[in-house]
Amino acid sequence: MTEGVFHMTKINVVIVGYGGMGSYHGNTIIPAQNDKLTVTGAYDVLPERIEAAKEAGLETYESFEAVLADEKVEVVLIATPNDSHKDLAIAALRAGKHVVCEKPVTMKVQELDEILAVAKETGKTFMVHQNRRWDPDFLMVREMYQAKPIGDIFQIESRVQGANGIPGDWRHLKEHGGGMLLDWGVHLLDQLLWLVDSPIQSFNVDFSYVLGDPVDDGFFTYITFENGVRAIVEVGTSNYTKLPRWYVKGMEGTAKIDDWDCQGEMIRATNAENVSAPKAIQAGVGLTKTMAPPSEEAMESIPLPEGHADFVPFYENLYEVIREGKEPIVKNAEVRQVLALIDEMFAVAGR
Amino acid sequence: MTEGVFHMTKINVVIVGYGGMGSYHGNTIIPAQNDKLTVTGAYDVLPERIEAAKEAGLETYESFEAVLADEKVEVVLIATPNDSHKDLAIAALRAGKHVVCEKPVTMKVQELDEILAVAKETGKTFMVHQNRRWDPDFLMVREMYQAKPIGDIFQIESRVQGANGIPGDWRHLKEHGGGMLLDWGVHLLDQLLWLVDSPIQSFNVDFSYVLGDPVDDGFFTYITFENGVRAIVEVGTSNYTKLPRWYVKGMEGTAKIDDWDCQGEMIRATNAENVSAPKAIQAGVGLTKTMAPPSEEAMESIPLPEGHADFVPFYENLYEVIREGKEPIVKNAEVRQVLALIDEMFAVAGR
Repeated sequence: MTEGVFHMTKINVVIVGYGGMGSYHGNTIIPAQNDKLTVTGAYDVLPERIEAAKEAGLETYESFEAVLADEKVEVVLIATPNDSHKDLAIAALRAGKHVVCEKPVTMKVQELDEILAVAKETGKTFMVHQNRRWDPDFLMVREMYQAKPIGDIFQIESRVQGANGIPGDWRHLKEHGGGMLLDWGVHLLDQLLWLVDSPIQSFNVDFSYVLGDPVDDGFFTYITFENGVRAIVEVGTSNYTKLPRWYVKGMEGTAKIDDWDCQGEMIRATNAENVSAPKAIQAGVGLTKTMAPPSEEAMESIPLPEGHADFVPFYENLYEVIREGKEPIVKNAEVRQVLALIDEMFAVAGR
Repeated sequence: MTEGVFHMTKINVVIVGYGGMGSYHGNTIIPAQNDKLTVTGAYDVLPERIEAAKEAGLETYESFEAVLADEKVEVVLIATPNDSHKDLAIAALRAGKHVVCEKPVTMKVQELDEILAVAKETGKTFMVHQNRRWDPDFLMVREMYQAKPIGDIFQIESRVQGANGIPGDWRHLKEHGGGMLLDWGVHLLDQLLWLVDSPIQSFNVDFSYVLGDPVDDGFFTYITFENGVRAIVEVGTSNYTKLPRWYVKGMEGTAKIDDWDCQGEMIRATNAENVSAPKAIQAGVGLTKTMAPPSEEAMESIPLPEGHADFVPFYENLYEVIREGKEPIVKNAEVRQVLALIDEMFAVAGR
């Protein structure tokens, strides 16, 4: 195998922004997903992060321009604060690099459109790291939605509730694109819109500003889709007790997934004949048959889906897109749709 | 004590509609709440229910008119299907009786207004049995809202989820005012509006018709109030796995009450200094500090409120209103406000 062929096969990646996410890409995500990508170097504006990159055995650069000037670099991975994504992405594309960008891709749709125009013009790949499409809990819900073990799903509740506030870095600053809608909301909305794949009919959104940060520390949104699905998406950072990560209601049953550990339950109607009527229970100061536990033969517990992806990992897909001309799993039109929704959400809230 | 004074003190009640609720009033609710009310008789259109009333030791009547003609009857308790409340209530008021009416008071605000006009004209008491203001689980939330152990409450989620469908009686018939918004929704909205006591800013509502009944078998509504409180009210009758009865978020903590048994938890921030930073956890395919469990010193569990009413029981209040001119706890203006909201909810949904 000649050096030329080797270069055609392996893809060299340089990480720009070697902070928490950037180093996680280099140390964990990329090595775990694809041996055809090599993280060769990193650049950061902070000297201590350059030092960390050196300690990780990476080549480091004196400037972003130096990264772009390095001919062996095929992919620039952008993991900087959100307000810098646009300029860095456009410069990298113009320098002939493919670009992987952390989420949220930009702070406004307008910025994304500028990037996409340059990607089109240069013919280079631009892919956004919406990695939570590969979350096992989400994939369980996706399998329920598609295989219908509890019938057609018409209500989806997706919550991520923490109690640590907003992380004490740029994510709590407005000028860097902080706040929970852009940080976690972009994941949950990306999952939802990809799953339901129907135009949005209406939405409500309310933001929380309970912790005194200049950006939202959480939000609640209720979304209805033209296909009849309704959804709650909620993120909180001052929720000391939590609701399940997912609650899903289908025409023939319901399911919940408690947390990242993917524990939960899925129960469906048996539609058995001659089911004995439920016995009234005391409910507060009243009696209820309607809300009493159903008789045992009326329902059955079935195993939750396994949550395996029936599509390749993000970085394997990146390789396929660049080398083999395959379709990206995370399509830019989808990323744009989520960001347009986020734009609208801020607009209706006057933010 | 002369017979005249005795009559001035004790109040004789006749139950019209001696079905599930009517007999529950006679056998359980009234005897438990006040020894100054005496259920003396009952009337029902069904011979078998007349028989049941006789077996319970009650005087029975041959017609509704016969009840109204009986001078010893001071209060008529209406526990018939919803579509008959208006005519029965107006006739009873015009006959000089006080009236207690089961919920939902009527199917439309217009009908209620007709009743209230006659109550005003006759000077007789008309009170609606919104008994779930006395539910211990609700009273726990009310105490949280008022005493603020977790700070000002800004998010209230109130859910009643069953899996038995709509009861197989008139409650699943549209012409009798069936459906879950009128049956259970009226309770949950009455609790919420009484608690928050602020004008509604906006609401969304979606109904479920998954079980094939001609009326809604559940609904989801998201309501925002002018004072900043936001609320979810949800009723389901095909929920095989459930979310907590209450989830409440305050400025300094969160609480949940799981079920009618009033178990749950309330946790608040300690705002302790020098709290150690949370450690990142694996969440799906990513890491998160934001959503990691807070360090132990950052929060504390506190006991849930006891859920005792600081106001008298419904029928004790009825006695006070009739005999002592006191204010009703369930005010007709409040009942009207809830029904107006329900009217609007059906209107926006085109139902």
